[in-house]
Amino acid sequence: MAAPLAVDFVAGETGPWRIESIRAIAGETLAFAPRLRAGDPAAAGVWRLRGVVSNLRYTTKAEATDLAARQEGLGRPSATRAALIPIRKSPEWWALAQDERRAILETQSRHIAIGREYLPAIARRLHHARDLGEPFDFLTWFEFEPADEPAFEAMLARLRATPEWRFVTREVDIRLERAVLAD
Amino acid sequence: MAAPLAVDFVAGETGPWRIESIRAIAGETLAFAPRLRAGDPAAAGVWRLRGVVSNLRYTTKAEATDLAARQEGLGRPSATRAALIPIRKSPEWWALAQDERRAILETQSRHIAIGREYLPAIARRLHHARDLGEPFDFLTWFEFEPADEPAFEAMLARLRATPEWRFVTREVDIRLERAVLAD
Repeated sequence: MAAPLAVDFVAGETGPWRIESIRAIAGETLAFAPRLRAGDPAAAGVWRLRGVVSNLRYTTKAEATDLAARQEGLGRPSATRAALIPIRKSPEWWALAQDERRAILETQSRHIAIGREYLPAIARRLHHARDLGEPFDFLTWFEFEPADEPAFEAMLARLRATPEWRFVTREVDIRLERAVLAD
Repeated sequence: MAAPLAVDFVAGETGPWRIESIRAIAGETLAFAPRLRAGDPAAAGVWRLRGVVSNLRYTTKAEATDLAARQEGLGRPSATRAALIPIRKSPEWWALAQDERRAILETQSRHIAIGREYLPAIARRLHHARDLGEPFDFLTWFEFEPADEPAFEAMLARLRATPEWRFVTREVDIRLERAVLAD
């Protein structure tokens, strides 16, 4: 928890993740590329998205303790599927005060509680991008086993049906598979 | 409230603000320079600090409405004094959950309530810098009339005596006067 970890997601010709599909859920899509790599700012690519793993913005101590006891980290060898879901929210969302956003996100939408139900199977890491002047506000990275893909779909469907998602103006769903062979 | 406004504070030979003093309150200081300008990323300088005017992180709707009714904007012709106070907080602060940080900032330290007492005399704008990988987490810019400088000092003294300030590991207090003549 020193400086926030900056992560570059670069889509291009090389990288350990094979891009299976890129689908726009809301707003403009992103161009297709065969591979994706993370954490290499020098890599050339078709597109690049940057975010930082920063401090918690809504999660309470009780929630964070509970989540930490359940969740598993990234990089599990069995978690060969991944998704990168960049999201942008509307100016109306960002103009809300802290308690208003928390009320929509959790009291009304149960965002944290829904994600918790899918732990430890669906591992995730949130990257903040809005303050960086990026085209998206958040980049969420998920990793899971192939057998958990239906559960992942169910989780996304539930989240996308919440009041919070009315504020989502752009969302792209990028699915990936770990490339077992070397690049 | 579209994209967050990015602001560069550049200390150097030119700029509309004359730097009166630069004083380290905690941690390392910044080098002296005669002038300061804001909002010009291309300007060369002795040092440059970057931040973004972003969404509210702790303020509730009730507090924000109350503050908005009292505060005045930047750029009042009579507000010829200014201060730029960059602050960095400890890793312990950033590891706290949202409710823990809010409890220290407002319930224990009355940060928002103390600032409110000095409105509209002391105008302020907060810039977030931590996610940008900057050396400071926040850059707060204050503007006030010369007659309100004692009130400004009192406000700073009260804030620096709070439990919140135990988490401040670096703080530099930069005082400025508007240069009436052209650069």
